[in-house]
Amino acid sequence: MRNICLTIAYDGTHYAGWQVQRNARTIQGEIEKVLKRIYKKKVKLTGASRTDAGVHAEAQIANFKIESGIPPNKLQLALNSSLPDDISITSAKKVPLKFHAQFDAQKKLYRYSILNSRVDNPFLRRFYHKVPYKLDMPLMRKEAKAFKGNRDFKSFQAKNAFLERKSTIRKIERVAVRRTGDFVYIDIEADGFLRNMARNIVGTLIEIGRGYLPRGSASEILKRLDRRKAGPTAPAKGLVLIRVQY
Amino acid sequence: MRNICLTIAYDGTHYAGWQVQRNARTIQGEIEKVLKRIYKKKVKLTGASRTDAGVHAEAQIANFKIESGIPPNKLQLALNSSLPDDISITSAKKVPLKFHAQFDAQKKLYRYSILNSRVDNPFLRRFYHKVPYKLDMPLMRKEAKAFKGNRDFKSFQAKNAFLERKSTIRKIERVAVRRTGDFVYIDIEADGFLRNMARNIVGTLIEIGRGYLPRGSASEILKRLDRRKAGPTAPAKGLVLIRVQY
Repeated sequence: MRNICLTIAYDGTHYAGWQVQRNARTIQGEIEKVLKRIYKKKVKLTGASRTDAGVHAEAQIANFKIESGIPPNKLQLALNSSLPDDISITSAKKVPLKFHAQFDAQKKLYRYSILNSRVDNPFLRRFYHKVPYKLDMPLMRKEAKAFKGNRDFKSFQAKNAFLERKSTIRKIERVAVRRTGDFVYIDIEADGFLRNMARNIVGTLIEIGRGYLPRGSASEILKRLDRRKAGPTAPAKGLVLIRVQY
Repeated sequence: MRNICLTIAYDGTHYAGWQVQRNARTIQGEIEKVLKRIYKKKVKLTGASRTDAGVHAEAQIANFKIESGIPPNKLQLALNSSLPDDISITSAKKVPLKFHAQFDAQKKLYRYSILNSRVDNPFLRRFYHKVPYKLDMPLMRKEAKAFKGNRDFKSFQAKNAFLERKSTIRKIERVAVRRTGDFVYIDIEADGFLRNMARNIVGTLIEIGRGYLPRGSASEILKRLDRRKAGPTAPAKGLVLIRVQY
């Protein structure tokens, strides 16, 4: 038995997210379909992060176990020659049998891209959210600090999260807000993310940056532990899973 | 009468090129359609460069004359709100009546992007040509020098160029071949380009770089003045019109 670890880049525009779903095209589903063809049997892929519909990845990590001697570099070529061109296996390697892409993940880094302009960029249009209003960058940077550390992110979980029995506490190690030309990037690195958490944090920071929510809102909303207090969920297209650390 | 100059960025993937054609979607056609709606009359757009089907632009320049008082910034917004999302007007301004986007162009800069890897990049896949073979960069750089200066580019014009009565002499001011990670960029700046000239130069440089054409081929092929001697035309998707200088 071998444990194979894949690094996967994808443009999530045309997918219903990572996880296999009935009647929907998903990244996991597309890769498992090709693996089944290669190994002539069903293969179950475990992904580090269940990215939502429309969210992208530069380096999603996934593993699967198989009894087969196909060398990982040959497997990578076989996968890439059959996968659609918006999914790419950027590496394939043998890892210890005990490695688990989801449970062993220590940190994940997501990047949200905002185009702060009235004019779109046709080359990158699938990968940013356009915000045509003036954004107060120093204020956004200051407010972003409220999210750092061990916090209860109940106010920032998905609206439709059915009564969670699990903890809504997560540890954010880094939130960085930076500007390059008309692009504003928000990097969030945490030990884990609740459903929609990254996009709800970004949505709230945008509302603060454009003056719709007052100074101090970030920490205030955290304290309320109520999703209805936070800003709207920023669109999926701006979000990219950048890396997973083990 | 006013003369309006537009700067236009586009992803050319889904277009039959810049120039209006019967029964085909073109960039010029899409913009003229919207201009007609805005001004309630037919408007003729003059583009600096007739980019081919599938070729992109970061800054195509085009002008048109109109009797109308719509301020250029309002026109830009109106165009962008109606144009498809793979075309974007990045600036609109009033220019002197005598300005002609095509005839007044002094230099044009095209950039060709090669992904020199066996693995695709799902984010940029519409904007590069993948070359999985090893490329000899120092050799490509050296050979590229042969194209500099006033040269007869007859060997590098389109195969189907019907008996040109016009001159096939052009002046290339700069050819730069550089590598950034797995990407290889070839910049060509010239006073003008014959049909397919940039892509034929790139196709030839790739053949030299991978060892299919011998050292010295670039200047040899130029001398022959025969299209059949040059390398294949590199695919349109890798080419971007970067800027036009007046």
